[in-house]
Amino acid sequence: MDVGFLGLGRMGRPMALNLVKAGHRVRVWNRSAEAAESLRAEGAVPVASPAEAFRGEVAITMLADDAALRSVIVEGGVLDQAELPGIHVGMSTISVALARDLTALHERAGVAYLSAPVFGRPDVAAAAKLAIVAAGPEAAITRAQPVLDALGAKTWPFGPEPARANAVKLAGNFMLVAAIEAMSEASAFAEAHGVPAADLLDLLTGTIFAAPVYKNYGAAIAAGRYEPPGFNLSLGAKDIRLALAAGEAAGVPMPLASLLRDGLIEAIAHGHGAKDLAALALVSARRSGRS
Amino acid sequence: MDVGFLGLGRMGRPMALNLVKAGHRVRVWNRSAEAAESLRAEGAVPVASPAEAFRGEVAITMLADDAALRSVIVEGGVLDQAELPGIHVGMSTISVALARDLTALHERAGVAYLSAPVFGRPDVAAAAKLAIVAAGPEAAITRAQPVLDALGAKTWPFGPEPARANAVKLAGNFMLVAAIEAMSEASAFAEAHGVPAADLLDLLTGTIFAAPVYKNYGAAIAAGRYEPPGFNLSLGAKDIRLALAAGEAAGVPMPLASLLRDGLIEAIAHGHGAKDLAALALVSARRSGRS
Amino acid sequence: MDVGFLGLGRMGRPMALNLVKAGHRVRVWNRSAEAAESLRAEGAVPVASPAEAFRGEVAITMLADDAALRSVIVEGGVLDQAELPGIHVGMSTISVALARDLTALHERAGVAYLSAPVFGRPDVAAAAKLAIVAAGPEAAITRAQPVLDALGAKTWPFGPEPARANAVKLAGNFMLVAAIEAMSEASAFAEAHGVPAADLLDLLTGTIFAAPVYKNYGAAIAAGRYEPPGFNLSLGAKDIRLALAAGEAAGVPMPLASLLRDGLIEAIAHGHGAKDLAALALVSARRSGRS
Amino acid sequence: MDVGFLGLGRMGRPMALNLVKAGHRVRVWNRSAEAAESLRAEGAVPVASPAEAFRGEVAITMLADDAALRSVIVEGGVLDQAELPGIHVGMSTISVALARDLTALHERAGVAYLSAPVFGRPDVAAAAKLAIVAAGPEAAITRAQPVLDALGAKTWPFGPEPARANAVKLAGNFMLVAAIEAMSEASAFAEAHGVPAADLLDLLTGTIFAAPVYKNYGAAIAAGRYEPPGFNLSLGAKDIRLALAAGEAAGVPMPLASLLRDGLIEAIAHGHGAKDLAALALVSARRSGRS
Repeated sequence: MDVGFLGLGRMGRPMALNLVKAGHRVRVWNRSAEAAESLRAEGAVPVASPAEAFRGEVAITMLADDAALRSVIVEGGVLDQAELPGIHVGMSTISVALARDLTALHERAGVAYLSAPVFGRPDVAAAAKLAIVAAGPEAAITRAQPVLDALGAKTWPFGPEPARANAVKLAGNFMLVAAIEAMSEASAFAEAHGVPAADLLDLLTGTIFAAPVYKNYGAAIAAGRYEPPGFNLSLGAKDIRLALAAGEAAGVPMPLASLLRDGLIEAIAHGHGAKDLAALALVSARRSGRS
Repeated sequence: MDVGFLGLGRMGRPMALNLVKAGHRVRVWNRSAEAAESLRAEGAVPVASPAEAFRGEVAITMLADDAALRSVIVEGGVLDQAELPGIHVGMSTISVALARDLTALHERAGVAYLSAPVFGRPDVAAAAKLAIVAAGPEAAITRAQPVLDALGAKTWPFGPEPARANAVKLAGNFMLVAAIEAMSEASAFAEAHGVPAADLLDLLTGTIFAAPVYKNYGAAIAAGRYEPPGFNLSLGAKDIRLALAAGEAAGVPMPLASLLRDGLIEAIAHGHGAKDLAALALVSARRSGRS
Repeated sequence: MDVGFLGLGRMGRPMALNLVKAGHRVRVWNRSAEAAESLRAEGAVPVASPAEAFRGEVAITMLADDAALRSVIVEGGVLDQAELPGIHVGMSTISVALARDLTALHERAGVAYLSAPVFGRPDVAAAAKLAIVAAGPEAAITRAQPVLDALGAKTWPFGPEPARANAVKLAGNFMLVAAIEAMSEASAFAEAHGVPAADLLDLLTGTIFAAPVYKNYGAAIAAGRYEPPGFNLSLGAKDIRLALAAGEAAGVPMPLASLLRDGLIEAIAHGHGAKDLAALALVSARRSGRS
Repeated sequence: MDVGFLGLGRMGRPMALNLVKAGHRVRVWNRSAEAAESLRAEGAVPVASPAEAFRGEVAITMLADDAALRSVIVEGGVLDQAELPGIHVGMSTISVALARDLTALHERAGVAYLSAPVFGRPDVAAAAKLAIVAAGPEAAITRAQPVLDALGAKTWPFGPEPARANAVKLAGNFMLVAAIEAMSEASAFAEAHGVPAADLLDLLTGTIFAAPVYKNYGAAIAAGRYEPPGFNLSLGAKDIRLALAAGEAAGVPMPLASLLRDGLIEAIAHGHGAKDLAALALVSARRSGRS
């Protein structure tokens, strides 16, 4: 298929490459042009403007955050151009509110819009094993499926309302940060009782908590290895902020999300924002006087 | 081996049976005598007093809580009797403080003491697939190994100080309740955004959270099925209380454990103490005005 | 002095009246015109547009929230008109971020801008006893002083940077909601121990907590009297949201503010948003199974 | 009256002195005898054992905590001696549970028991201005009144059940620590926005928060003056622990008390346990990266 891909960051780049490998014709755009240019040798076609990428059968956005997506899609005016894509698949982790705005804007512009955020870190993206959460018009999901299949292990459909996929993604990231906080406190607790965190986490992530999230982040905490980041702590903080805002808008108190928010702010205030999300463990350690 | 087994509750009964099946000679005692008597047909030998059970090569206690264990072992005076067991393996979930007291008392009485709490619900106990966390003198662990092998899938050693195994168990149960709280808030959040909790949990517990804890409790939350209980909510509250006390004693703040404590008290105040721990989800639902 | 007054809500109306009583010439504007018209008999001059009110020696805004202020001042374009006020005194409780934006916009337009939010409920406003927190150019504070003196008991200066006054106001409202939460939990605790909340609060607000905040809100909680509202619970929720956002922007975790946020959302989810802020006590009561 | 006084710590000593000054005959006992001996010159009569102090018309206990009181009254056996006091007035801050135990024990021994904990720091005790919260048999309160009048500004009666006075005391101390936490977070917030904490607290404790608790602790926070302690942080932690336990026993979640608990543990883990309770502010400061 003819695919436009906007946003070649740590996640977007391997995803775009997988599309090329799967035989799709891929126009790529990125805010800093080198990232796009560097994919030319791999078979992608770098383009100079968002408008040139935002056309074809499917246009995929994998931009950093609400602001980046708003700037390109809403303020950038690409929805007003003559040539429009058949489907826009928004794969970034964005707010529920922006997803609703985009739904309305695309409806007006006559472009099918799917929200399809993903679970998985850059190595999972590279392996084309992402879990894709897709919501939007069923026909559009069906048409986009070959493209999604090149990116993920499985597409999980969540109905016709795009914003629901974003709610699911935020719920999942909330649970992810919650798991890290639980391991952090448990580790500080264990260490204070003479049990190395590595021993505790080895046991638990090998038995009742034997899931990717616990294994990956548990290993980082056990080793005290927070750099280079797989998923930046400050991005995790952003996602918790989005979850809290969406929860508040829907009348849902989330005391655990609030607790995570405060821990993440504390981590950032101590200079850990650019470390891996697992560095949240440093907060529990310091609170107990151990760092 | 010659084994005494004290405490035939939901966990203890299948464990004692597994010892019989594995060919050990098992004397069983329980506070209410019928529970012991009912095991006679299975090949166990019911005895009338804790003292008669607390002897032989290995004596195992699987009593309900600190109070029950204190009553039988500390106040019951079994450590003062002439005939003593070679090893006492304490498998209940008890406080770190009591584990320390028991260590000292057994040392004085000349009985090897192991703390060996377990992870797993009654069905896992019945399948002899428990994860056993053992701490105490290495020689004693080695001698008790055949007995432990009849009960669990694997024994995880945590060094010579018994109380460490109890700290590990409390840390694990804390993480368990934290996982339930995370699913509870995520479910209330999802429902308020039009996403059925079952769909959300199906996705997450099938991918990045594919671990027993999430699958079991997630399925209960998805189905709103909190009875009969696998693990009573009020027992979960007790374990969080023990974790908080042990944390405080060791100078470790545990804000997430505190949050869990308050949610569990709220659940109990609304009559859910005898339901399954997964009923913690009812608190998040009610807080968001949905029940 | 020649004063323009924008925003005649529960606080603005008595404030505008006090300016008239103090002998100032007061042009008044309100989104719904009747509120302005009804002040004609009192000696104020109703005007039909924000632009007509936003001129003269001092223009005061007492609008509901960020959105209202942005709509009138930023998007409404009053800063672009030929005739501008000498000083704009913003007295609403707004975000620190908006205060910063306004500072820059007024600088560009050549209008002196003061942030001067107030502490006190409508009855305190009517009595001209507000505590006014003022920040901005010292000369502007001096010039506006006669106007402020007609509104409050005292003006507390907080230096040349307007946003600081807004930070102070948010800090104060945070402490106010915190005091209510403390009384709420203490009341639920006391009631569960057989002590009427009224007796507890009578003692404490008559001794070590003998301050207006505790006396006023304590009396409401003691009587279970949450209507009519003096200060809407949903407005309190807004202020906590602003405090959390400003805290996050400045790297300050505020776990107590987070806790208040979740309690307020829970109150709103149960239909108490339009009640008085003291209705936060209903949340503690329900959590303990008492309502 | 003939009064026995047990416990001459920072609060007990000035209280015993006030009894002497008021003309009562006062036998004094303290665990370390020098404290009692040093009051001889002031007119008190030092005695060598709790038993000698625990007799006369009124015996007052002002011991450090549950353990000290249990050790002297319950385990010490003073209730079994021939000569017993007419009334025992327990003025320490103790658990609700111990107050219930004492009530039962005194009933059996035929001694009237009053719980009469106090609000006020040592300087307030010295000025005989304590707020006394008394619960127990009405006749006993009446008989003890001359003694209470020598100690406090006013006695607040809370009915016939002694434990209620202890619940009230714990509720008050909870509110006190909550007020300090609120000031701590507000101060960190203000400082991060360029507003000196002293300026913020000066404003608020001079207006809507003009109450002794805010003025005293606010002044300490403003000055960063945490030594010598008026009320030890570790004692505050103990009281929060007692409040949480009593809340849990009565089915009352207290999320704010939990939050305070974790902050206090963090403070103690960083070496502030022997400082004044106001040092809780150091936790908020450190969490925001400012100390």
